[in-house]
Amino acid sequence: MISFNINFVSFFLANELCCAKTKEIINENSDLRRRLLRTRRALEETVTQLTMANQRKKQVEKAICKQIHKTSQVLRVAKANLNSGSETDLSKQ
Amino acid sequence: MISFNINFVSFFLANELCCAKTKEIINENSDLRRRLLRTRRALEETVTQLTMANQRKKQVEKAICKQIHKTSQVLRVAKANLNSGSETDLSKQ
Repeated sequence: MISFNINFVSFFLANELCCAKTKEIINENSDLRRRLLRTRRALEETVTQLTMANQRKKQVEKAICKQIHKTSQVLRVAKANLNSGSETDLSKQ
Repeated sequence: MISFNINFVSFFLANELCCAKTKEIINENSDLRRRLLRTRRALEETVTQLTMANQRKKQVEKAICKQIHKTSQVLRVAKANLNSGSETDLSKQ
């Protein structure tokens, strides 16, 4: 009878200890889930920023190429005008 | 005696169940830790990429400003040369 009581008490205590440990791990679990969620959101936000930065970079590259092409054409016309001007000057002399 | 046995068995089973549940949550915990670590690494990598993209953007902006300044100076000199040329032409006439 006494040994049964001791066993009963020891199992009761073991069960209590196990439940306390489980509660602790459950809390840790909730904390980990929250941290994972926060980190995921931060990752998503950073990926969005990076994607936008890359898109903007491509747009700027395209705009620069367009401007270089325009400038190149303007300079070609200016050079042609200068050349025709020089020829006129030469023909006048 | 019978009631003690029933209590003993029920506590034994509750304890076993609690331990099984604890093991399950411990495994879930390990999985969450792994996922958190992976997500953190991905976040760090993306932040590094974004930082590099921003640095590169600033460098390109600086280079463009330098080139615009250079071009502006070249055009100013060319305009001055053209003007002085026209004045010479006028004085010749």
